[in-house]
Amino acid sequence: MVQYTRARLDASFAALSDPTRRGVLEQLGRSDASITDLAEKFDMTLTGMKKHVGVLEQAGLVTTQKVGRVRTCKLGMRRLEEETAWLERYRRRWDERFDELDKVVEELTRKEKSDEGKNRK
Amino acid sequence: MVQYTRARLDASFAALSDPTRRGVLEQLGRSDASITDLAEKFDMTLTGMKKHVGVLEQAGLVTTQKVGRVRTCKLGMRRLEEETAWLERYRRRWDERFDELDKVVEELTRKEKSDEGKNRK
Repeated sequence: MVQYTRARLDASFAALSDPTRRGVLEQLGRSDASITDLAEKFDMTLTGMKKHVGVLEQAGLVTTQKVGRVRTCKLGMRRLEEETAWLERYRRRWDERFDELDKVVEELTRKEKSDEGKNRK
Repeated sequence: MVQYTRARLDASFAALSDPTRRGVLEQLGRSDASITDLAEKFDMTLTGMKKHVGVLEQAGLVTTQKVGRVRTCKLGMRRLEEETAWLERYRRRWDERFDELDKVVEELTRKEKSDEGKNRK
């Protein structure tokens, strides 16, 4: 189970690491599109677009269906829940970590001030 | 500005697409660590770990500081705001898209039932 999640996160974050692929997802969020439409829209060869769509399909973010000569792409069933959960967990951790550091700095500052006070006496 | 954001998203999603790199971020969320600590913890060569840390550093997710012979890694200042915002926007889109499809299916079902009703008359 953990292994599957890990592999899914690997694949989806890799899929999201390219601006064209993020653009394709945004586009498919507005309407389904054929590979030809997408290639035109993103000013790319059919072969190039097929590769990008293949990566998105592998990651479960897009599904495609061929009817006649046209392959239509639509959003896949994955709603990026696990990816969002990972980022949220990370950001909580990040906040806690920087809060801790703030406290350490505060503590040091207080200590310094109190030492100064003692020295003055 | 858009270009910078795009390049940052490319770099951070690529950085997050590896389980070791995600593990390193989780680890540094608990405490700072040297490259040697991290290599041991993830059962990896120093060279391998240096590469992973380099990718995280490039993406602004980790900062490192060398004191004497030890390079200490800590979480960088990037809180993955833009990445979270992208995912949230995408998920809203996804929900809307599937709601639309639900409505189309409902509409078709209703039409079918009403046609059946008419045929029965």
